[in-house]
Order: sequence, then structure tokens, then C-alpha cells
Amino acid sequence: MDKLLDLVQCPDDIKKLSEEECGLLCAQIREFLVCSVAGTGGHLSSNLGVVELTLALHRVFDLPRDKVVWDVGHQSYVHKILSGRGDRFDSLRKEGGLSGFPKVRESDYDVFDTGHASNSVSIAYGLARARDMQHQDHRVLCVIGDGSLTGGMAFEALNNAGQDKTGLIVILNDNKMSINRSVGAISGYLSRIRTGDTYIKGKRKVKQEVTEHPGLKPVYEASRNLKNRIKYMISDGVLFEEMGFTYLGPVNGHDLTALEEVMTRAKSLSEPVLIHVITKKGKGYVPAELEPDRFHGTGPFDVKTGKPLKAPAGNTYADVFGAKLSSIGEMDPSVVLVTAAMSDGTGLSSCDSSMKDRIFDVGIAEEHAVTFAGGLARGGMKPYVAIYSTFIQRAYDQIMQDICLQDLPVVLALDHGGIAGEDGETHQGLYDLAFLSSIPNMTIMAPSCAGELERMLEFSHAYPHPCAIRYPKGTAPVRETYPEETITLGKGVYLIKPEKRGEKTVTLVSLGACLEMAESAALTLREEGYGVGLVDARFMKPLDETLLEEVFRTSGLVITLEEASCRGGFGESILALAKGKEWKAACLPLALPDIFLPQCSRDAALDTYGLSEKNILKQVHEYFSNDTN
Amino acid sequence: MDKLLDLVQCPDDIKKLSEEECGLLCAQIREFLVCSVAGTGGHLSSNLGVVELTLALHRVFDLPRDKVVWDVGHQSYVHKILSGRGDRFDSLRKEGGLSGFPKVRESDYDVFDTGHASNSVSIAYGLARARDMQHQDHRVLCVIGDGSLTGGMAFEALNNAGQDKTGLIVILNDNKMSINRSVGAISGYLSRIRTGDTYIKGKRKVKQEVTEHPGLKPVYEASRNLKNRIKYMISDGVLFEEMGFTYLGPVNGHDLTALEEVMTRAKSLSEPVLIHVITKKGKGYVPAELEPDRFHGTGPFDVKTGKPLKAPAGNTYADVFGAKLSSIGEMDPSVVLVTAAMSDGTGLSSCDSSMKDRIFDVGIAEEHAVTFAGGLARGGMKPYVAIYSTFIQRAYDQIMQDICLQDLPVVLALDHGGIAGEDGETHQGLYDLAFLSSIPNMTIMAPSCAGELERMLEFSHAYPHPCAIRYPKGTAPVRETYPEETITLGKGVYLIKPEKRGEKTVTLVSLGACLEMAESAALTLREEGYGVGLVDARFMKPLDETLLEEVFRTSGLVITLEEASCRGGFGESILALAKGKEWKAACLPLALPDIFLPQCSRDAALDTYGLSEKNILKQVHEYFSNDTN
Repeated sequence: MDKLLDLVQCPDDIKKLSEEECGLLCAQIREFLVCSVAGTGGHLSSNLGVVELTLALHRVFDLPRDKVVWDVGHQSYVHKILSGRGDRFDSLRKEGGLSGFPKVRESDYDVFDTGHASNSVSIAYGLARARDMQHQDHRVLCVIGDGSLTGGMAFEALNNAGQDKTGLIVILNDNKMSINRSVGAISGYLSRIRTGDTYIKGKRKVKQEVTEHPGLKPVYEASRNLKNRIKYMISDGVLFEEMGFTYLGPVNGHDLTALEEVMTRAKSLSEPVLIHVITKKGKGYVPAELEPDRFHGTGPFDVKTGKPLKAPAGNTYADVFGAKLSSIGEMDPSVVLVTAAMSDGTGLSSCDSSMKDRIFDVGIAEEHAVTFAGGLARGGMKPYVAIYSTFIQRAYDQIMQDICLQDLPVVLALDHGGIAGEDGETHQGLYDLAFLSSIPNMTIMAPSCAGELERMLEFSHAYPHPCAIRYPKGTAPVRETYPEETITLGKGVYLIKPEKRGEKTVTLVSLGACLEMAESAALTLREEGYGVGLVDARFMKPLDETLLEEVFRTSGLVITLEEASCRGGFGESILALAKGKEWKAACLPLALPDIFLPQCSRDAALDTYGLSEKNILKQVHEYFSNDTN
Repeated sequence: MDKLLDLVQCPDDIKKLSEEECGLLCAQIREFLVCSVAGTGGHLSSNLGVVELTLALHRVFDLPRDKVVWDVGHQSYVHKILSGRGDRFDSLRKEGGLSGFPKVRESDYDVFDTGHASNSVSIAYGLARARDMQHQDHRVLCVIGDGSLTGGMAFEALNNAGQDKTGLIVILNDNKMSINRSVGAISGYLSRIRTGDTYIKGKRKVKQEVTEHPGLKPVYEASRNLKNRIKYMISDGVLFEEMGFTYLGPVNGHDLTALEEVMTRAKSLSEPVLIHVITKKGKGYVPAELEPDRFHGTGPFDVKTGKPLKAPAGNTYADVFGAKLSSIGEMDPSVVLVTAAMSDGTGLSSCDSSMKDRIFDVGIAEEHAVTFAGGLARGGMKPYVAIYSTFIQRAYDQIMQDICLQDLPVVLALDHGGIAGEDGETHQGLYDLAFLSSIPNMTIMAPSCAGELERMLEFSHAYPHPCAIRYPKGTAPVRETYPEETITLGKGVYLIKPEKRGEKTVTLVSLGACLEMAESAALTLREEGYGVGLVDARFMKPLDETLLEEVFRTSGLVITLEEASCRGGFGESILALAKGKEWKAACLPLALPDIFLPQCSRDAALDTYGLSEKNILKQVHEYFSNDTN
């Protein structure tokens, strides 16, 4: 039974298959996906949804000569299997293993490394124009979900590509939801196309009716709402057609024959074409069909029950955020929550019951999310924008222009601020400290534990200016009460004051989640006889100059710690401050390097790049043994 | 004659006017705009186009209780005149004077400080939802041009606002062009609505026909292309209606009565409404009607002839860029140019003749522009993306994900990198060094003169990785040949090597356009007996560590110079490097402060913030007189 899947290694193998064999192959792919992802974790629902779509692509087109760009890219597992990478799925998302996203370095079949939504049409249009200018004749395609379609840059690209006659095939994978439910008018529009099917049965059918019937009068008179009746009779895809695309569909995304037909038709056209494919997220695996969101990105699970293998280890920062926001929101009716298709990931879904009418999920549209929050704030509300660090990059300009320049009291709650782990390069939340601190009027905090996040949320609630709170994914440690219980703007705290002064004294200045390793290192160093200071900096911007002056005055060596890129980060700011002030103590910033960090577990990355207790100790030992003082 | 304009100070005055007086007022406003902008410079064409539109707004709505958001904001002059700010137009765009953009601090009639395109719908939707949640009942409007509509975030906002039934009025000011010609499918779509008028005369007419005629058969049979015929009969605004907006229009934007009618209708509706207004850019002033682009943003000009009062003083960096790119492009057919509605401003229009088919103006769509360039590069081309520094902020994520992460040989040519001058806060090009340097794989250069820009363009042409070249607006100095003629990755050059060594020696390390003042200061300091070094750094990233080590070794004081924000900039990077390396010399970074710089001339700003020869001398004198060494 498994042989078919194992035999298929390239498009030629795939093209030879009979209809029956194709059906068998799809079933085998689904079984393989479920078993494989159950073991490694990964994106499941979206991949189960595109089995037939991907198979049709590989059968109809001439890959890798023809180019396929996968929007977001987490739905490229089937594509990987069909392009000879099935045997590497046990290494999926592991260090040195197969990526969960397309990677040019992995295969000729991957054209572009994707990870953030809505950029595939722009990429494909670029590839298409490059092809034309070089007089080549391959096809260029992209596969984009209905969720990604709400991202503005997809619209920018459709608008641009639709105006010229370059051949380009956009496959709209309409699974009726993005990561959470798809929102917005476009979602409604697509839904009308889908449901309208019962009385219009597609555009071709209508054209046929109109031609065959002796007059249109009886058809129209039968309808009370004449305008809408006419509109919907011809409106399948009118939005896309108005933008210059030839619209084909909607087509059942689990009917391989229909898919191959429509793709063959698209292949014969030389203009921009949009194929509207209706798929079911999680298709073929009942637990995923029932809970597609939970199986969007999942950890290892039991295949039989679909239940996670590991129980979650305590509350995540997202959980703490959601719970605290609920209680703040209950007290203050002006609190509103904005997210961009990330209610679950950022913990907002736990606020649902108490604040239902004050949670705005705007879809995958980070730019709009931030500026919309600016409008809400100007109108008298207190908005919290909850987005992953890596995705807020989309809204850099909006944070600057529509929040900070207006000095509006918007709070950015940036989850996944730190190492992305298994998602790899495209999802690293390591640049937020640098790009946010370049913006005037911005205040940046990072909590070191659950309690501190709660205190920072209280602070931000009262703070009448823009601010950002960034914290990593994963469990929020629960720590003992701090000496200072409230958060004061721009103030860090000493957790351990050095008893010794001067040369053989090291102070660790930690920002955010690095505090655990810093504390552990501090205790060891104290046992080893060093004078040791430990600071929880709390604020990246503004820096606590008074505290830092004391730190440098009382230490021989200052080590800064942050789970962020070294470039423009916390440590670099402190280095610059210390040099400008001519503070004498040496300063060693521990941070992540100025590279795109490849996938591996967070712990492994911290270890590799020296953001670890072990390396702190090593650096201290080396410094003081070399130091002639 | 002028009395009417002078008498009108608030909405009550305006609402009292008769139809005839309104006509008179419009004429007086136009005359005032032309004379005023002829004296001060400013945005003319777009303001001449919205005289009636703005008057109708002030007559029909209850300002400032009702809120109007102006997209981009350069078309708010008439709004400023009608809200009592006419007497301040002699100070327009000057230090401490009236802003050329809406400013909340200026007037209750200004709701939001705008400057970058396409954000007004998001802001207005935020204001509308805030209103609803607080049970208020004022109207919220925004005025957005057809050019701004190509920006993806406008689409994100329409998509979001259209799904719910919050009252919101979007006025589409369709002047058939953005700053340059509007491009893309939406532009074609709007044009079809406009021209379709001759045979369909608007949706209402069609509905009427359909109802009145005994049967539709004869109408349809008269048309050969049945599908399109039906489609266009009902397609006015179908794109907007599909997105959930009630579409009103198109209406002649210079017919005050029609405008007031349609606005009154919109006011009576409680759902999202889009009013499509057709205006003529430059309306009423012949030179601006003939050359709307030239009068989009203009310097002082002669009212009679429309001719500029000042001849341009030598070639700008944009001119040099355009000319050099033409010659590179002639040699190499793989060179392509991408811009986002900025062909004129960035000098690309001068490439038109030689590279016509290789220039892509994608409209106001910076995100798409950058990713499209990524696609072009992956497809084998060599793209140059020419955009202003302030607008490339929109594409921070795309530069990271779709250029640098892919390590593609795309060149960002960032014009207006530096002080924005008269445009003020919203247009400052001061953050590029910081946000670009936070991105791995990015190389950043800044030329100090015309020749160096040419050399950098040659370097970038051969360079197989991402890079950015940033330069200010204004004239590019023509400088003597440098000691080192070619650009080497990450290498700066000594223009003056210090003869003395050590304490009384200062070295000025200049990035980009600061070199002129640095050179002048260096010569003065040498005359005063200091040991003086002068370095043209050329690269912001990577820094030339070897050169800097020598600079710090041979100097008592190092002064860095950059026309950029101090935060995360060139000087801060050098401070951090020097501290990390424990280089002993003192280091003083001269840069612009971490604030939003208000409008004033570039020279005045440089002087105010100490980026001047005078301040360099002052700092050197102070340092060496205080220094006990």
C-alpha cells in the first residue's frame, strides 16, 4: 500500500498515475501527513486541505521549470512530498532538518522562501515579468489562501498585475478561514460566490441560460430584488475580473479531475488568471476537520484521538496577557483589543466572554490593525494591539506615523518576541527592540515573568503615550515578588546589589525573559566568590541611566542579556550610552547575532549563540583571568 | 471682492452663503491659493481640485463635531482656509508657521496628523467604532484620492469597515492620477465608471430602465457582448458594493449643488458609504491644469506664467541617480527600475527614453514594490527600487523577508534620506539608517557628492547582495576626485590623515552629505593648530572596523556626523563598537535628536540641532579646553 507514495519522487512519476492511483496516492499522502505531523508537530489542517490541489499542480504543470510560489508557505508539505522530500519528514522543523516552509536551498521546486502572508502575488508577478523580459516561456503560479487575500499587499499586487497582460496564474485556496476565521468583506464576498452556487451554478451556467432562453424577462421577473438578482447572476469573480484577472471557478478543491481541468484551461491562457478553489481545512482527518484551528499549527499528538501528547507546562505569556486584559477590560470600558488574525495565538480568545464587543480581529492586515487602533485611540478608547513580533514588522510605518507621531496611548502587545524556534528564519521575533526603538515617542518594556507582565499591563493601562510590551512564546515563569512592586517609567530594579565594589565585580543587566538564566548565573558566580549584581532592566526604551551609572560605577564588568538581535538592541544601546558617558567598566553584550537564525529549538539556539548560563560563567571567568586589573 | 473670503471664518458663516456667493467664494479661494502658494511654495494642484468638495463638506456636515480625516493631507489647504486659518498662509510650511498637512495642534478641525498615503479609511473606521462604543452620534468621514486607493492598507480598511454596519463616509476624490499618473487595475476600473457614463448614466438610471421597460430582452439583444453589457450596466461601484459599501456617484466634483445633494444623501444613511467624486487637479489655474504634476508640490512661482521663480541650483542627487542609472541600464539589459508613484521625485523619469520597458511604476504601493523587485531579482533581473526614505518605511517587513532573507541583489535607492524641511514631521527621512541596519544581510551606503553616488551605483550594480544607498533631497555637490576612486564593500576613506597623533587630535568621521560641513570644519581646526583627521565613511553597514580602529588610535576625540536620528544610527553604532573594543579616544556623535522634527528649512534644522560647522568647532574647543589631558 505504501509503495505508491514511496515510488513517487518527481513529476514524471506523478503524471503517469491513473485516476485510481491518484485517489490512492491522495489517501496515502493524508495518512503520511497525519502520522508524520503527529510525531514531529507542524502545520496539519492547511496541508490536508491542499492534497488534491497540489497533486493537480504537479500533474498539469511542468515543475520545476514552471514556478510555484506558496503564500505563507506552511501549506507546502504536500509539495515537498511530491518533490522527493517525503523521506525527510522525520526531521521536519528540527535543527538541520526539513523546513516547515518553502526553502530555495532545499529544492529546485521551491522558488522563494515564504513565511509572512500576502506576498505571493507580488513575487509571482516579479517572476513573470522577469520571464517575459528574458523571452522565456515557463508558467508562473502562486497559491494564496483566502485569509492572506485580506492583506493589503496582495491587493496591491493584483491591482498591478491585473493591468497588464503578463501570463500569471493565481490559485485562490479558499478554505473559508485563515488561521482563525477569515473576516471582512472579501470573506463575505467569497462566501456569496460559494453559497450562490445553489441558484446560479456558476457563471458558465448563467451564460448558457441567457443564451438558451427566448427572453430574460421571466427570469428577472421571478426575482423581487432585481438589481441583486442580476448582479449575483454575473458576479462570480466580478471583483477579480474588475481587477483584470480572468476568473475561473469556483471549483471543488477535492475533485482532482475538476482541478486538472481548470488548471489545464488556465495553462492555455496567456493573461492573468485567478482560479478559485474551494477546499476544506483538515480534510480527511476527523479531529482536524472538527477543530481546524487547533491543528493549524500543532505539537505532537495522538493520531487516534487527536489529543496533544504533552500537557501544556503552565501558563504562557499569552495566557497571562489574555487573563490580565480581561480583568483590566472589565474595569475599564474604554479598553479595546485589536488583532490581525491572531486571537488564539496572542491569548485574546480568553477575553471573548467578557469583552466580546470590544475585540476586533481585522484579518491578516497588520497595517490597518495598527492605524485602526490609532483611530480608536484618537476617538477616546484605550487600544491594545496583540500581534506577534515578527508580523508587527508589517506595520513599522503605521506605528511611527499613526501612533507615535500622534503620541496616542496605544499599547502594542508583542507575543513571540524572541527566538521563533521550529518556525525558523521567517518568524524570528528578534528585531523588534531595534526597529521600535528607532521611533520617537515609543516606550518599550519586556517582562521577565508572569507577574511582571501583569504589572506592565497595569502600567500601560495608565500610561497616556505609546508603548510596547514584548515577550517570548512559551511558559511565563512565576517568580517571587520583587523588591519594587510597581512599574515606573524607564526604571529598572536591582534584584541583587553587589556587595563588593569595583574590579572583581560583575553585574548582569537582563532584559525580559533572560532573567532566569541571569539569576542562576548570578548565584553560581556569587558562590565562586565574585562580587555579583543582578538587574532586571524592564525597559529597553528609555534606558534607566541612573541605574546604569550605578551599575557601571560599582562593577568591573557589565554583561547585558537580551533575547534579540545584537544590532540596534538593548546591549548595543547600553554600550553606546556607556561610551558616550565615558563609564569605565567593561561591557559585554550577550545577544543573538545579526543573521537570520535557522530553525532549531529555542534552548538549542540560546546555547549555540551563547545566551546561556554556561556562557555567562565562561565569559566572566575569561574576562577576570585575562584582565590585568 | 476679497471680503467674502475674509468674512468666512467658521461653518456657520459658510452655511449662510447663497449659491451665488458660494460660486464667488470658490473663485476667491482659488485666487488666494494660487497667489499664496506662488509666494510660499506648497501643494497646489490637488488643493485647486477640491475647492467645491471641501466647501460642500463644510456646508453639509457639522464640523468640527463631525470628523473629517484627510488622506495624505496635502489637499487640506481649502479646509484650513474655511476653518479660520486663511490669515496664516504667509507662514505656510515655514518654521513655526502653518503646516502644509493637517495638524491636531493647529485646529479642532484637524482630527489626525496625516502625511503618508492610504491610511485615512483605517483612521476613520477607528474613529467611527470609538464613537459607537461611546454612544455618540457625530459623522465620521475621510477624503481619499484615487492614487491613495492603490495602497494596500486602504483596501484592508475597506474590507474591514465594509463588513459591519458602522456609519462611515468615504469620499473618493478621483482626479485620475495620484502624484504621477495613477496606475493599476483600479485606475482602469474607475476610468470605466467615468467613461461608461455615456451609455449607462449611472446605476439609478439603469434600475429605472429595467423597471420601466416591458422586457429586458431588446436591451440585451442589442448588445453583442452580453456578459459585459450586463456587467457594466450595473457595475458602477460594484467593486465597492461587493466590499460592503453603499456606492454613491460618480458626481462632478466642481458642481457644488450636486456635491451637496450627494453628501446630504450620504449623511442620511447609517451604513458605510462611498461617494465617488470626479475632480480635476489644478482646476481653475491654467498652468496647473496643463501640468498638474509640476504643480503637485511646487516652489515659489510667477502667477502670470506659472514659471518657477528660482532656477534649480545644479543637479540634485535624484538627477545624478537618474542619469547614471540610464547609462548602467543601457549597458545591462537586466537592470530594471521600480518605483511607487515617485518617478519624478526620484529622477527615474529621466531614464524614460532609454529604459521605457524596464521602468515599473506600481502606484502608491511600497510593500508590493519591494516584493515585486524581489521576484524580479529571483527571476534573474537586477532591480533598483527608487523610493523616498520616509515612504520605504512602509516596506520594512518586505525588505527583511523578501529581499534580505532571500539575499537577493536588489538595490534600494532612497531619496530624501535626511531632513524633510518644509514638509515636517511626517516626511522626515531620518530613521532609515536605524531600521535598515537592524536587518541581517543589508548593506547601507551614503554618498557625499554626485561623483560618489555614481561610484556607489556602479558598486551596487556589481554587488550580488541587497544594499541601500541613501541620499538627501537637494543639490548634490560636485567634489574633487577622491584618493580612492572605487567603492570597496565596507570601506571608508581618509580624506585628511592627522599629522599629529594623540591628545590634541580630532578626527571627523562623516557619513554621506555631512562631508561638506566636516571638511570646512576640518580646515578651520587645522588652521587653529589641532591635529585633524577627516574620514568619509561611505558605509553605515558594515562599519569599517580597521579604519575606525586607526581613527580611535590616532585621535583624542572622534566626532561622528550623520543627517539621521541619533537612535540606532551611525554614531551610536560607532560608540557601541568603540566601547566593545575598549578603544580609548572620546567619541561624540553629532546627529539629529530622537524626536519628530517639525517643519523648517534644512539649514535651520541642521543649525538648531548642532549638525553644523559652528557646532563642530564649538564641541572641539570645549572638549580640549575641559580635557585635563
